Amino acid sequence: MLTRRTFLLSTSLAAQRTQRRPNLVLIFADDLGYGDLACYGHPTIRTPHLDRMAAEGMRFTQYYSANPLCSPSRASLLTGRLHIRSGINRVLFPWSAGGLPESEITIAQALKPLGYATMIVGKWHLGHLPKYLPTTRGFDHYFGIPYSNDMSLSQWPVAYNNGPARERYVNQPEIPLMEDTQVLESNPDQRQLTRRYTGRAVEFIRGSAKANRPFFLYFPHTFPHVPLYASAEFEGKSKRGLYGDAVEELDWSAGEIFRVLKETGQDNNTLVLFTSDNGPARMESSQREATGGSAGPFRDFKGTTWEGGVREPFLARWPGRIPAGRVSHAFAEAFDVFPTLLAAAGGALPKDREYDGADLSGVLFRNQPGREPLHFYYQADEIRGVRQGAWKLHLAVSHTFGVDGVSVIERPPLLYNLEHDPSERFNLAARHPERVGELQKLVEDHRSAVKAGTNQN
Amino acid sequence: MLTRRTFLLSTSLAAQRTQRRPNLVLIFADDLGYGDLACYGHPTIRTPHLDRMAAEGMRFTQYYSANPLCSPSRASLLTGRLHIRSGINRVLFPWSAGGLPESEITIAQALKPLGYATMIVGKWHLGHLPKYLPTTRGFDHYFGIPYSNDMSLSQWPVAYNNGPARERYVNQPEIPLMEDTQVLESNPDQRQLTRRYTGRAVEFIRGSAKANRPFFLYFPHTFPHVPLYASAEFEGKSKRGLYGDAVEELDWSAGEIFRVLKETGQDNNTLVLFTSDNGPARMESSQREATGGSAGPFRDFKGTTWEGGVREPFLARWPGRIPAGRVSHAFAEAFDVFPTLLAAAGGALPKDREYDGADLSGVLFRNQPGREPLHFYYQADEIRGVRQGAWKLHLAVSHTFGVDGVSVIERPPLLYNLEHDPSERFNLAARHPERVGELQKLVEDHRSAVKAGTNQN
Repeated sequence: MLTRRTFLLSTSLAAQRTQRRPNLVLIFADDLGYGDLACYGHPTIRTPHLDRMAAEGMRFTQYYSANPLCSPSRASLLTGRLHIRSGINRVLFPWSAGGLPESEITIAQALKPLGYATMIVGKWHLGHLPKYLPTTRGFDHYFGIPYSNDMSLSQWPVAYNNGPARERYVNQPEIPLMEDTQVLESNPDQRQLTRRYTGRAVEFIRGSAKANRPFFLYFPHTFPHVPLYASAEFEGKSKRGLYGDAVEELDWSAGEIFRVLKETGQDNNTLVLFTSDNGPARMESSQREATGGSAGPFRDFKGTTWEGGVREPFLARWPGRIPAGRVSHAFAEAFDVFPTLLAAAGGALPKDREYDGADLSGVLFRNQPGREPLHFYYQADEIRGVRQGAWKLHLAVSHTFGVDGVSVIERPPLLYNLEHDPSERFNLAARHPERVGELQKLVEDHRSAVKAGTNQN
Repeated sequence: MLTRRTFLLSTSLAAQRTQRRPNLVLIFADDLGYGDLACYGHPTIRTPHLDRMAAEGMRFTQYYSANPLCSPSRASLLTGRLHIRSGINRVLFPWSAGGLPESEITIAQALKPLGYATMIVGKWHLGHLPKYLPTTRGFDHYFGIPYSNDMSLSQWPVAYNNGPARERYVNQPEIPLMEDTQVLESNPDQRQLTRRYTGRAVEFIRGSAKANRPFFLYFPHTFPHVPLYASAEFEGKSKRGLYGDAVEELDWSAGEIFRVLKETGQDNNTLVLFTSDNGPARMESSQREATGGSAGPFRDFKGTTWEGGVREPFLARWPGRIPAGRVSHAFAEAFDVFPTLLAAAGGALPKDREYDGADLSGVLFRNQPGREPLHFYYQADEIRGVRQGAWKLHLAVSHTFGVDGVSVIERPPLLYNLEHDPSERFNLAARHPERVGELQKLVEDHRSAVKAGTNQN
């Protein structure tokens, strides 16, 4: 190891001489589960590039997305703050009039004054009306679709023919593929999206490296959100059906990013993060295959506040700075991404507002232990539960299904020891009423302390 | 990577000049689940040494133990043949008169003529009467206990006070700790077992290296089988309770093995394998903590032919020979260990009998694809199911419990597509009756082709 570490370190210092601020890349999957990558134990999906990212960097096992659904999760990721503060509490639809308020500061906006070239490639989903588009929120350029890839008449005939939806929808093209503020295409061939996204991302990295500018690439993929598509090179190639094909193409895309970082000499001066917005879609049996993804050992799926809805893969790689092949059990959550990226860039958090996350530099670079887990489980603007340390209290839960499709209606309060029982099997509420009370108090204090923004949905 | 690979390769060639045959180490856990190691996604159990073994070697995601219970699984592992052939179809007890028949050839016996020093440290469980002890089956030395660590009056008062058990038991010391054929202690302090085992294993490696003899170390641990114990250095240290403490001490033990391999200059001339005998004990809620382990995404537990009962971690490391940081989705099973170790040693399979496994050298050393999955699920001497390719048919299943403790009685035939539905959620038997027929035929052919040995239980 020594030989190699020394080698990396020296080249990384060399790189740093020519460019002071590090490049930042945030790759973000859509509806990818904790158990969907080979490096998190998936038995059949092949993800060699992300496995290598983990082997050359740090892989987290206790990372939480901010919300079990798309828009709120992204609002929190990009602002470092609870979505309740910005009012993005539900999924935005093509007929939604709202978006991320101008009062919020995105990580891209925070990086601009530091001289960063910024680009988003992929799915925005924080408001598709002109004033909410990424180019108004700190991104120099945008290439992608403004909301989910199923939000069209052809994909959702029922939803889109319902009253308000139908009439509002006529003013909105189906699945617009946008460049900056312009619609390039309506209903683009989704089989080509991951390839086209990747091409633009690679182009942006090359251009920024050539201009010797530090860059921030935010790369929120469209897949494996349904409807699933993969290019001809991947369709039918995985053992996990179309879902696996889409994930394997995402892995290929990550490999292309690492390839161009090496080619441009930026590899050792770039912090790359990989994660997803929320848990996988519920697994169901279709005629062709089992749909949805895998939350690994965690219970249930996207849209719920069971662990499977919010526990995600989280990989961090920075050769010479982050030790290779380290698995971290430190607590981390989506709110931490903003302060961590800003700190890596040498910036300071704005003082005029509250941040809900913490800088992970100590865990990533200095082998420090993480902080005690404290996570509030939001569903829309409602707090559904809280985790403090090992203990998780559900105040309210969705109905859920056992692995056998048996319907079970949960009756709160539900108390689980996540360290002993990560799959949330055994309700200990009756055994530890005092703990239930403490956690309920914690939720009340949090609720009264957080100032909610105007609902954007 | 190039720098490092070249470095390893050259030193490994150097090592091979001084010693032609490679050393072989087989570390074997007891009741460890697919999901219990950090490198297989466990959220809280820390296994840095095994994670590093995976990062420096190959980690398999489709490895099967031969049986969901202890003795049959070990009989198959050590002979490379279905336990039905040797008649070890059930767990052996202190009152069992049987053991692995002398007609069977263990991997240790196959390695002796090639000049190997051989030792087993830990749990044997293939017959405790003198004629069945390891020293009669190709092992120069033995240090450990002959059966499970719960098989004593104090641990199992009910079982051991039942008719035949009780009177036969009086002739048998409780939990004998043995050295070769002698009983050193009765009921040793189990908190010290992993440390004492590890000390003997390290001693054996040092001695063999000093004598410049190729060695085979078979290291079947006593834990995390219940009752759980850990030394003072580990008890109470993990976040996963005593179960996690025991697993983290096993990980420490593996680290000691790697340390002495490096110290003695044997690291690059040693193939190390790590796996377990069967899935984790069923997770239950006790007063102190949730007992049992995690099968990760797989369904159910030890003792069943659901995937959780037989899917296991499988790690293989040989610096310079096995590529670093590779995840393999190739099919592999316990029957493959015998031919793989023998081939690595330069030996040839005995011609006078049938072997049920295959040499994994192509997958490990030459980046070749694995063979198509074909696995028969045995419970005792009964075939409970079969997997061919993606498809698994259950002929009979135990009752099982959903994650919510809901009792569900399964009604065969049950057909699952394990590639799309690794958690065995969706029974497709009604949708693919022809597939059910094909798999039933496969089982009949197998049953009529395999010659069963005399039952040893």
